[in-house]
Amino acid sequence: MKKKLNQLSVKEVANKISSGETTSVKVVESCLERISEREKEINAWAYIDPKLALENALKTDKKNPKGLLHGVPFGVKDIIDTCDMPTEMGSKIYKGRRPTADASCVALIKAAGATILGKTVTTEFAGSFPGSTRNPRNKDHSPGGSSSGSAAAVADFMTPAAFGTQTGSSILRPSSYCGIIGYKPTFGTYNIAGIKAASQSLDTLGLHVRSLDDIQIITAVLVNRKHTEIKTLESAPKIGICRTPIWNITLEETRNSLEDSASRLSEAGAKIQDIITPDSFEGLEEARIKINCYERSRHMIYEWTEFKHLLSETFQEVINTGINMNYSDYIKAIIQTEKCRQDLDKTFDEVDVLIAPCVDGEAPIGIAYAGNPRLPGLWTAVRLPSINLPTHIGPNGLPVSIQVIGGYRADDKLLSISKWIIEKLGSPTLNEIG
Amino acid sequence: MKKKLNQLSVKEVANKISSGETTSVKVVESCLERISEREKEINAWAYIDPKLALENALKTDKKNPKGLLHGVPFGVKDIIDTCDMPTEMGSKIYKGRRPTADASCVALIKAAGATILGKTVTTEFAGSFPGSTRNPRNKDHSPGGSSSGSAAAVADFMTPAAFGTQTGSSILRPSSYCGIIGYKPTFGTYNIAGIKAASQSLDTLGLHVRSLDDIQIITAVLVNRKHTEIKTLESAPKIGICRTPIWNITLEETRNSLEDSASRLSEAGAKIQDIITPDSFEGLEEARIKINCYERSRHMIYEWTEFKHLLSETFQEVINTGINMNYSDYIKAIIQTEKCRQDLDKTFDEVDVLIAPCVDGEAPIGIAYAGNPRLPGLWTAVRLPSINLPTHIGPNGLPVSIQVIGGYRADDKLLSISKWIIEKLGSPTLNEIG
Repeated sequence: MKKKLNQLSVKEVANKISSGETTSVKVVESCLERISEREKEINAWAYIDPKLALENALKTDKKNPKGLLHGVPFGVKDIIDTCDMPTEMGSKIYKGRRPTADASCVALIKAAGATILGKTVTTEFAGSFPGSTRNPRNKDHSPGGSSSGSAAAVADFMTPAAFGTQTGSSILRPSSYCGIIGYKPTFGTYNIAGIKAASQSLDTLGLHVRSLDDIQIITAVLVNRKHTEIKTLESAPKIGICRTPIWNITLEETRNSLEDSASRLSEAGAKIQDIITPDSFEGLEEARIKINCYERSRHMIYEWTEFKHLLSETFQEVINTGINMNYSDYIKAIIQTEKCRQDLDKTFDEVDVLIAPCVDGEAPIGIAYAGNPRLPGLWTAVRLPSINLPTHIGPNGLPVSIQVIGGYRADDKLLSISKWIIEKLGSPTLNEIG
Repeated sequence: MKKKLNQLSVKEVANKISSGETTSVKVVESCLERISEREKEINAWAYIDPKLALENALKTDKKNPKGLLHGVPFGVKDIIDTCDMPTEMGSKIYKGRRPTADASCVALIKAAGATILGKTVTTEFAGSFPGSTRNPRNKDHSPGGSSSGSAAAVADFMTPAAFGTQTGSSILRPSSYCGIIGYKPTFGTYNIAGIKAASQSLDTLGLHVRSLDDIQIITAVLVNRKHTEIKTLESAPKIGICRTPIWNITLEETRNSLEDSASRLSEAGAKIQDIITPDSFEGLEEARIKINCYERSRHMIYEWTEFKHLLSETFQEVINTGINMNYSDYIKAIIQTEKCRQDLDKTFDEVDVLIAPCVDGEAPIGIAYAGNPRLPGLWTAVRLPSINLPTHIGPNGLPVSIQVIGGYRADDKLLSISKWIIEKLGSPTLNEIG
């Protein structure tokens, strides 16, 4: 069956437009049609302006030369500033707020020819209080958070790509629950100016996509480098299986996905070895939580002083914890995460990547709880690049991912190996047509 | 001679208000009076709203309990967002721009009782294209940049304290030229949310003040810790004299200030030793410039795409350099700065602080050139905390500073030792009454 335009990947859209086979307007129309069919049930979008998107697509069609993202529709998480659409951050405080400039990432993809379809639903200030988005694979289940709308919109073929941000688990968790790919680059890789800060030592901008090749193209635009295809591996990789110190929180489907992946990748030629996290990981989770609460309490002080009554109780608790935290405890937590990161350098002398559980299991039922953040949080704390690959299906028929983690700044290698892995393992959700 | 209210330090203002000796309104009136007398000549302020400042001071006088900065007037560099005043960033692009929220640092000092007097002049987006501010010590000379207005306003007794930011030399250089104290904490210490980004790996929020004690009080507010006086040293410190690899750019007055300081501090009991920067410093300046240009080109992409014609040629050049830079060269530069920082840990096992030249010499004549950024830039690149102490006077009767540099996150120790140093060396400008 031929894919509809809204089902194409970023790379496919760009190729078909550049070859003259289709136009930006047609692709955007197709995405908007999908959105109008499905949005009432999914609630992926905080703001959508079909007229503006079509006007911009029309302008793009008249432009030459074509940028790398020429004609590509994009969703933007609603904590990221856009000068021509509101940015409400999932909070009543910023109802109707219009930023005075685009965030850097938005300006960069626009300059490369992308069309912003709209703003995607975020939990309140990318924290844990959920929005109204539902999991497109099963509307009775959570899409995960905090980049709930971005993951759901990409999974539901409303857009080929969307920006997400991760401070704990906010890209990989919803991507895993919705059965797509989430990518959190090495801390600091993508520019975060114009994004509402949660925790400055952890906040990472990343992507939700349905194809690894798309990450490579979008990265070229965001970091300003020449685009080349993901490098093919010359030999099978050395893979460390890291069950993490919190293996006990994983459900059977996650355990199975890891063990099955290890055994099939070994058969495919990978050198597999078990990796135990360095001793410095003891207490790392608590350190990440401390950093998150302390830094949030600094970032949110304006809203806290002026509009406390408009913050959810959940969010107020986080800020209160931060305000009551001892500054020297926060500094200790920062030093611990730095130490863990450095200790891991030795691990990546032994193996090329790690494979670890992504989240505890399938998406939880209901939308009041966006899921457990602990597993991706470990790797966010140490600033390493990570990708979830939706390789398995759980007992409720919902997606289960493995998490692939690269060395510090070894994002290119991580992508190459992830591509090798997904070719070997396949994905029950990525190649499906919705 | 008794100090006028506008001549008081932060600590003195807070104490006199808390003891009932004066009020916030009286202090603000005194500062506003000074501003109205002098502003025509100095041009320290991008925006000033006397009515609003007085209204806020009146509200503060009615408040209880009193925060640590109760009644203290403050200047805010105009790249820092304020919800009730414009934030124009020294650029025509943002003429009249009104942010939708206060930057974290502004919200934090307001919550502690400070009154924002207005916005201080910045060079264009805190880059090198100067504003119209003049050096209050001699109006024919530059105040330095980019925090030109903040340093000039504090030096001219228009406000006891002001926020500055440093990406290269933007706090210490103007503080040195204007004869006050500039403080750049360890990278990441003060929260920078709501501040226009220049270069995310270098941008550091800091302070312009006339007394070291004020740094201690303001830090307690910004990082949320209990305020205690700066700790007195138990014994004389070990001080490294670091002429840096670019000693050749220093003018005679700067060389003299360093040699004279070394000899007098040795007499006062300090253990003095020469320190040569680690080998990894070779090429560090070029690395900092690369990081600055590359990251600026990412941060400024919205303005570049939409309003290029409103950027100065100087600024366009910086962005162009960044856009044409190879991404892998940028990453190499980042890695080099990280290596230099780590190598310096060994230096700080041997000595407590370094003393280095602050800037090349006295403030240059004219206001078209904000001065040489290279010397403070070295220490910004390695993220270490640094303070300038205006200990000497040059051949034109203008202030000359030494720069004191602390170990990574050893800001408290740096303050203690700086206090010891300024007590031993004295300052020709700090204790003067304007």
